[in-house]
Amino acid sequence: MIYFDNSSTTKPCEQAISAASKALREMWGNPSSLHKMGIESERLIMNAREVIAGSINAEEGEIFFTSGATESNNTAIFSSALTKGKRRKKIITTATEHPSVSAPIKRLEDQGFEVVRIFPGEDGVIDPYEVVKQVDKNTLLVSMIMVNNETGVINDVSTIFKAVKAIDKEVYTHTDAVQGFLKIHVNAKKLCADMISLSGHKVYAPKGVGAIYIKKGLNLKPFIVGGGQEKGIRSGTESVPLICAFAETVKVHSKTQDDRYKKAALLRQRLMERTMTLDGVYLHEFKSFLPYINSLTVKGYKSETLLHFLEEREIYVSSGSACSKGKKSEVLKAFGYSDSELDSTLRISFCGDNTEDDVDRLAYEIQNAMNSLVKIKR
Amino acid sequence: MIYFDNSSTTKPCEQAISAASKALREMWGNPSSLHKMGIESERLIMNAREVIAGSINAEEGEIFFTSGATESNNTAIFSSALTKGKRRKKIITTATEHPSVSAPIKRLEDQGFEVVRIFPGEDGVIDPYEVVKQVDKNTLLVSMIMVNNETGVINDVSTIFKAVKAIDKEVYTHTDAVQGFLKIHVNAKKLCADMISLSGHKVYAPKGVGAIYIKKGLNLKPFIVGGGQEKGIRSGTESVPLICAFAETVKVHSKTQDDRYKKAALLRQRLMERTMTLDGVYLHEFKSFLPYINSLTVKGYKSETLLHFLEEREIYVSSGSACSKGKKSEVLKAFGYSDSELDSTLRISFCGDNTEDDVDRLAYEIQNAMNSLVKIKR
Repeated sequence: MIYFDNSSTTKPCEQAISAASKALREMWGNPSSLHKMGIESERLIMNAREVIAGSINAEEGEIFFTSGATESNNTAIFSSALTKGKRRKKIITTATEHPSVSAPIKRLEDQGFEVVRIFPGEDGVIDPYEVVKQVDKNTLLVSMIMVNNETGVINDVSTIFKAVKAIDKEVYTHTDAVQGFLKIHVNAKKLCADMISLSGHKVYAPKGVGAIYIKKGLNLKPFIVGGGQEKGIRSGTESVPLICAFAETVKVHSKTQDDRYKKAALLRQRLMERTMTLDGVYLHEFKSFLPYINSLTVKGYKSETLLHFLEEREIYVSSGSACSKGKKSEVLKAFGYSDSELDSTLRISFCGDNTEDDVDRLAYEIQNAMNSLVKIKR
Repeated sequence: MIYFDNSSTTKPCEQAISAASKALREMWGNPSSLHKMGIESERLIMNAREVIAGSINAEEGEIFFTSGATESNNTAIFSSALTKGKRRKKIITTATEHPSVSAPIKRLEDQGFEVVRIFPGEDGVIDPYEVVKQVDKNTLLVSMIMVNNETGVINDVSTIFKAVKAIDKEVYTHTDAVQGFLKIHVNAKKLCADMISLSGHKVYAPKGVGAIYIKKGLNLKPFIVGGGQEKGIRSGTESVPLICAFAETVKVHSKTQDDRYKKAALLRQRLMERTMTLDGVYLHEFKSFLPYINSLTVKGYKSETLLHFLEEREIYVSSGSACSKGKKSEVLKAFGYSDSELDSTLRISFCGDNTEDDVDRLAYEIQNAMNSLVKIKR
């Protein structure tokens, strides 16, 4: 089995699974309980918080656990609106966000907020000037994806957020860092971000856990309210086992980040070499990109058909992002993909376990598919 | 170790843990992926949905998975407001709700909604007439707890919701059924509830999973938005392992529900007998109550001190609910507890594993505490 769909989800690592198991069997107290079973569970969460904080150069008190990046993104956006949305009504974002950012922003737009969506340039990257020229006294929030989940394009979030803050410190800055986290260095302090969304299951933790970094002193109104857990920022009994699992994988994969990056770069290089000889097959290239995520067009062949051809050979890839379930990607359109490219593009996303042989197999089977499948008629 | 804090959280059962482990190791695909690893994961969720639906006499399509009851309650309340809150501005609730219901309602009140909070009668129970007489054309939602988490009082939700619907079908009805689920029969159809909140970790599943029943055809606007998972009602990659665990425990504990209830009733009886001979110690009694949750006043002794005295002897109880972390309970006040009772009340909450010997040990140690500890001076 060859798994090239790591941007959809990753295989939980052994360390994560065993941390979850331990919490389930041995430390299952409610972290809000006053007795020592509660305190023990609370300590597990504190330790996990320290680990996540350390991994992005944040302070422990700046990390809040959530059920995943979708909740983190919803929190960042709706909490911004709840806190300052009466005075500030403009949101600046990109046309290439994940739905868990674009959908909450769309909801605010429907409620009367002004939304400016910046399109990437021809090189795939958001031009910082296009963002900063939109910032004014009415601006509530700049929310921008760090690494695009469909193309791997890396935006210069740090430069943009610094410029935004230089214009007006009161503007909230938020980045969805899900696809960048533990692949490139995410440094909360250097980013000038007020809020950063992280996911567990994209980095070898179980599905159902994520975190949001919220800069100290931001005093955001919470999105989910109730018992006041997570210092009131996120109510609901914490998922101790998943939080422990998340911390364990972060411990393990922080250390291997640079090596894994180099390997991904080699795999991408290999993928490029092995497919460039195929007629009508090409990797999309951008000015700044993450080698883990590869957008591969196989001209004349429907991506879904290719996906199923490959899965029959135990090779798992994605057509567009997993979230859109086969719908045509508005995000790829924003990146300038032609109509025929939208229909014929696969996402090949790597993890540390993939090998060059795997890539060779993929290229071989794509060629095989091109020989066996009927071309789309246009 | 004797654990009497089962209303805070329960020990995950073996079946739940092994279902989670299996999903983590073998079926870790993203349920939104189009390839067979995704379809396999989606099938796990479908099966789980069927199990949860079956357990409350609902249809499969009426169950949506969440990160827990807090999110379910937030969803019920905020989604109601998002859907019909422009036309209807009145919310009827009780003064004895869990914070994950009372806090979202408080937020809506701050945003301009009218909120009516019904207090229980002297018998502890909400008088149906007190609710229905408040229903008018402006009423958006009636949200009422099924079994109170601090006292075990059972409200006659079914009678109340039926009457509400008879007055105006358009009024949303929601019940937080967390403490009732798998302890008394929760029948979605008979309840006349539009929305029902359920939690996993109160019924031997891991923390971090819950569900909301939403009646077919309700067309609620979602609370968390994004990739459109759970038919758009709850975006975010589903926590497949926790959902599988939840379904397994529901399978197991649906079957034992009646036997466990009888056992809890015996344990409560025993607790009453063993403590009634102690001076100033009494169980609070109500017209309708769940024998699993026992509110025990030890007059003259601070509940926190008692809690720590007991935990040193490996007996775990709660002072008030776990969510309030030692704050004075507004809910107990609403039940008519005196100031001195608020300070001196323990919650003893049973599960199927507790024994009569455990109860005897508790009674013995309470007597022991009364002999050793200094009384509160008033």
